[in-house]
Amino acid sequence: MRDVAIIGVGQTVVGEHWDSSLRMLATEAVYLAMEDAGLEQVDALYVGNAYGGTVSSQTQLGALIADYAGLNTIEAYTTEAAEASGGAALRTAYLAVASGAVETALVVGVEKSTDMLASARVQARNVSLDADYETAHGATLTALAALLMRRYMHEYSIDLNAFEGFSINAHANGGTNEKAMFHNSIKPGRFAKAPMVSDPVNLFDSAPDGDGAAAVILTSLNRSADMVPQPVRITGSAAATDTLTLHDRSDLLYLKAANISAHKAYARAGIQASDVDLFELHDAFTVLSAMTLEATGFAERGEGWKLAQSGAIGLGGSLPISTFGGLKARGNPAGASGVYQAVEACLQLRGKAGKNQVANAKTALIQNLGGLGSSAFTHILQV
Amino acid sequence: MRDVAIIGVGQTVVGEHWDSSLRMLATEAVYLAMEDAGLEQVDALYVGNAYGGTVSSQTQLGALIADYAGLNTIEAYTTEAAEASGGAALRTAYLAVASGAVETALVVGVEKSTDMLASARVQARNVSLDADYETAHGATLTALAALLMRRYMHEYSIDLNAFEGFSINAHANGGTNEKAMFHNSIKPGRFAKAPMVSDPVNLFDSAPDGDGAAAVILTSLNRSADMVPQPVRITGSAAATDTLTLHDRSDLLYLKAANISAHKAYARAGIQASDVDLFELHDAFTVLSAMTLEATGFAERGEGWKLAQSGAIGLGGSLPISTFGGLKARGNPAGASGVYQAVEACLQLRGKAGKNQVANAKTALIQNLGGLGSSAFTHILQV
Repeated sequence: MRDVAIIGVGQTVVGEHWDSSLRMLATEAVYLAMEDAGLEQVDALYVGNAYGGTVSSQTQLGALIADYAGLNTIEAYTTEAAEASGGAALRTAYLAVASGAVETALVVGVEKSTDMLASARVQARNVSLDADYETAHGATLTALAALLMRRYMHEYSIDLNAFEGFSINAHANGGTNEKAMFHNSIKPGRFAKAPMVSDPVNLFDSAPDGDGAAAVILTSLNRSADMVPQPVRITGSAAATDTLTLHDRSDLLYLKAANISAHKAYARAGIQASDVDLFELHDAFTVLSAMTLEATGFAERGEGWKLAQSGAIGLGGSLPISTFGGLKARGNPAGASGVYQAVEACLQLRGKAGKNQVANAKTALIQNLGGLGSSAFTHILQV
Repeated sequence: MRDVAIIGVGQTVVGEHWDSSLRMLATEAVYLAMEDAGLEQVDALYVGNAYGGTVSSQTQLGALIADYAGLNTIEAYTTEAAEASGGAALRTAYLAVASGAVETALVVGVEKSTDMLASARVQARNVSLDADYETAHGATLTALAALLMRRYMHEYSIDLNAFEGFSINAHANGGTNEKAMFHNSIKPGRFAKAPMVSDPVNLFDSAPDGDGAAAVILTSLNRSADMVPQPVRITGSAAATDTLTLHDRSDLLYLKAANISAHKAYARAGIQASDVDLFELHDAFTVLSAMTLEATGFAERGEGWKLAQSGAIGLGGSLPISTFGGLKARGNPAGASGVYQAVEACLQLRGKAGKNQVANAKTALIQNLGGLGSSAFTHILQV
């Protein structure tokens, strides 16, 4: 099994790109990554996309984007695991390069959904829930996240304010990320007064849908050193799943797939959670952030939120998370979010994160979730 | 890079499964493959599915099927390349096992679409065409296949009868395959009288939509010999793409992706086209069969149809194709078709093909196409 490294990254601004199509966004990120790696050709393209079929009436994105980006005839296809589609594409590229079958693999995560009515968008994105047992009863992802959050608050006897720190941190970091969707800060005390989306999930709890694309290029570690000055090693890669539905989980407040995939990745990299310098986690909802920190070994059960309250998750804290704003402030272009995490981790490890830089960052953990933790992809990046 | 083998296969009957859901079909194939391999657990699941989101309002099939099949927590996600989604899943499993990251990988291709009105189904499946440049103008896959066929007939001065042999062969082989959708034979002379679907593509030219699921289990060649009596080696695996749209192709009658992926697979396996004992090709339309035989090295350009006319493609001929009925008579459950091809090739190589057996089959070629050759996955299986 060959060691694998990332040699190029690219990303578009996340936002409402009404003047840009899905293929245009993807190609912009592809070009930026290829320029960054100094490459004019790659051998394969893996596309992370969750809602192209239902939102843009467009699938077979591998062939489409390969052609549109001038890479016609290369191996190309799409991977899908709901909001973790980008993580799945990164995993596929890792396997392809690690096997030796592919020399340079391009990963692009792309999503384009904001030029659709919000109500139609909710329906189009609902396909990643269980059609027979959740969607049929009117559930949406946000409504299910509300159930989860309510239970968490009940079980651990905390109120809404306990989650405030996650949003404040995300928006503080998004404020200095020029690719972020939101640059506004959230003042302490404002959080609990935000309009409700699905009680108790409010506007500041949930990450916004956004259009965007991000890309990374992988090759073998051996080749990478001759190609770029700062290759970033992928020392851990793992995936796991949990039940699709919340109601099938024996323990509602335990993110099993997040736990398993993280610990497999740690083992593969030969590290422990305490070795992690920064963590790009899947903060689609603040309750997911809290539960993720517990599942991945950074907090005891029921105490993930304390890391936000204490400031430990800040850029200068003991475990910086969402260092470029996370899904919450950078924005959540579903199938692209997992690739944005990889791009952001690489910038940190290269020391090129500007005002968002985590000092002396050597080991980054990134984790991309589908739904409320039904699919989980964890990667460890190191320099 | 580890050598890889198939150690288990399973398939459902292809047809109109109005009493079975997508997850039930997938699980049936999974159980059959696991029983065949004598396994109660695997390490990863790769799902080939093209239209779950638009037809069944269901994505994130990795987590869903893993859970429903009792494989909860394993790595699982979906691959998509339109009708070549099954080939993409096989490719992913191959990369995962070849890399050493995964010991046993399960591939399941599944599609469920016949309990939808035919008109809605056409729309739901149209997402794999180019939404901006084809679908927007009213094109459907069959209409585009008709353009291709008309051009082929014009360029090579042949009439509809030239394609007859492909359908006669497929239905003859489907007649003795208990998993096939159609068991009726097509008498010589009947072909040209079939009702038109999209002139000149008639009812006997085009493969029927069908519900179904097929599964194969992969592991390293080293392990396989101790696990099952007849492992089937995957000696070649390759993928390539062509333009998504027909109108962007510089040479309309040349299947570039089919050509490139086949020749890469030959090179990897160290064989030539003449070494192939049987070929499960992507006969979604008869013109695709003719063009595929030309692209993969079995016929000169414009002469693929002659192999059908001469009978060379029959079970006792020099190059048997669609040996269990192909997409045409076994039926075409889009994202599953590529995995059915793998199952069928394994049965041939094991000598377990019953009345459909190709004598002394040692080397099988399988090729799965997305759209009209926009995505192509080619695998070579050997014993």
